[in-house]
Amino acid sequence: MAAGGDEIETLIAAMARLPGLGPRSARRIVLQLIRKRAGQMAQLAALMASVAENARECLVCGNVSQSDICPICENPARASGEICVVTDVADLWAMERGRAFGGRYHVLDGNLSALDEIGPEDLRIPQLVERIAEENIREVILALSATVEGQTTAHYIAEALAETGVTVTGLAQGVPIGGELDYLDDGTITAALRARRKF
Amino acid sequence: MAAGGDEIETLIAAMARLPGLGPRSARRIVLQLIRKRAGQMAQLAALMASVAENARECLVCGNVSQSDICPICENPARASGEICVVTDVADLWAMERGRAFGGRYHVLDGNLSALDEIGPEDLRIPQLVERIAEENIREVILALSATVEGQTTAHYIAEALAETGVTVTGLAQGVPIGGELDYLDDGTITAALRARRKF
Ligand SMILES: [Zn+2]
Ligand SMILES: [Zn+2]
Repeated sequence: MAAGGDEIETLIAAMARLPGLGPRSARRIVLQLIRKRAGQMAQLAALMASVAENARECLVCGNVSQSDICPICENPARASGEICVVTDVADLWAMERGRAFGGRYHVLDGNLSALDEIGPEDLRIPQLVERIAEENIREVILALSATVEGQTTAHYIAEALAETGVTVTGLAQGVPIGGELDYLDDGTITAALRARRKF
Repeated sequence: MAAGGDEIETLIAAMARLPGLGPRSARRIVLQLIRKRAGQMAQLAALMASVAENARECLVCGNVSQSDICPICENPARASGEICVVTDVADLWAMERGRAFGGRYHVLDGNLSALDEIGPEDLRIPQLVERIAEENIREVILALSATVEGQTTAHYIAEALAETGVTVTGLAQGVPIGGELDYLDDGTITAALRARRKF
């Protein structure tokens, strides 16, 4: 297909399967990497190999980093008694870019979905309940998308935490209906966090 | 920025610089690679390292492959006396997907451009003239884009080859005005090749 030999075609096919890419962009990327004389591809390969070896999920919050406990959970300055619950790591990173939140996170790894048969036991909700009991948490901020699945998940967690006495809030102002968190600009996220409402 | 540690952020920044990608798609890709338990990232890294080490430009035609002479130039069945001239390797691969051409190629590595100060000496035009003299070539097919730069380049090459006696043709029917070859579907390229006209 690519006429460049088996290994180059295999690399293009592998890259074409990455999210947001397709055959055409994969071909463009591989060709550019091959043609850069400075060894851009070798550098990228080495970096990937190292990340593949060292990246792991934080045992506490589910963030991705190069240690068992991520830099945010390790940072004593972030033990504010607030946990921000997010659907996935991309949303955690989006929150961090907003620089509006000084506490810690909890990554659910998805939303509840009847359609996709994702129940509470498939998400990291039990671990969240455990953290409320173990850490000195005053407030849980549900920073979930304003989609049906996101809001179903938010309601479920609010119920599950009802007896713990912790304050449960949700992002309010600024998140458009149907809006995915990771698509919003940083300022919108900041505004939504500041105007958070009690659940 | 990515809150995931220096190396992960470095990888995301490197991927965001690839053609067609940006910070958001780079983050999505890196997160997916990290989360796939089957070691997808390690495999991709190994494949990239190998391609980085082995990929090179064909000494004859400029195609990219894993040997000094590419599989097309090595293939005796493709010594048809026809050379198809393309702007870059992506266009060569686009021609090959069309499966309409059975000869060999010559990659220019760009188009003439007064604006970008790209003259004939910056392209592989002297090598093309040499090949006409050395190989038993009857026809040169100029498969260049229907842009100002592509057609300027085509006219220049037609002039440069005028004294060799070789027949110079160009893709005719099917390439839309202003159209980049690599964006066309395979059938359009095939039709344009079949209806090629004498320059
Ligand atoms: Zn953590
Ligand atoms: Zn070749």
